[in-house]
Amino acid sequence: MNYVVACMNVFNSGSQKVVVKARGRAISRAVDTVELLRRVFVKDLQLQGISVGTEQVTRGEDQKSSVSAIEITVTKP
Amino acid sequence: MNYVVACMNVFNSGSQKVVVKARGRAISRAVDTVELLRRVFVKDLQLQGISVGTEQVTRGEDQKSSVSAIEITVTKP
Repeated sequence: MNYVVACMNVFNSGSQKVVVKARGRAISRAVDTVELLRRVFVKDLQLQGISVGTEQVTRGEDQKSSVSAIEITVTKP
Repeated sequence: MNYVVACMNVFNSGSQKVVVKARGRAISRAVDTVELLRRVFVKDLQLQGISVGTEQVTRGEDQKSSVSAIEITVTKP
């Protein structure tokens, strides 16, 4: 919900585009954020694009692991 | 990992297209599945499209709630 408010603030400050990014288990929350925003708060929101990928994260000392990531771009006309 | 194997089986049985679907907190696992498949197992995998939406689920007696959903379509040429 905090993320929905954050997106609203960006739109209300005059911006027309928001990119919601998340990694790992937060990915589902990014989708929740966009869906809630679209269904309830910004009716004319347009889904511009969704991309997924893999990012490298370093844990502690030189331990590298791969984590999935998502980027959802939404615009308000 | 089981889902990666399941996708591999579909491809190996001659199909050229797999649609990975998930709802709620499993969404991140769907992304993990596709990313692992693409990075490690099927090098020439192509991401055909990603869509997100909201589905209604009924819990117990007439308790309806909304849950986010994702559909990722991948093809092997």
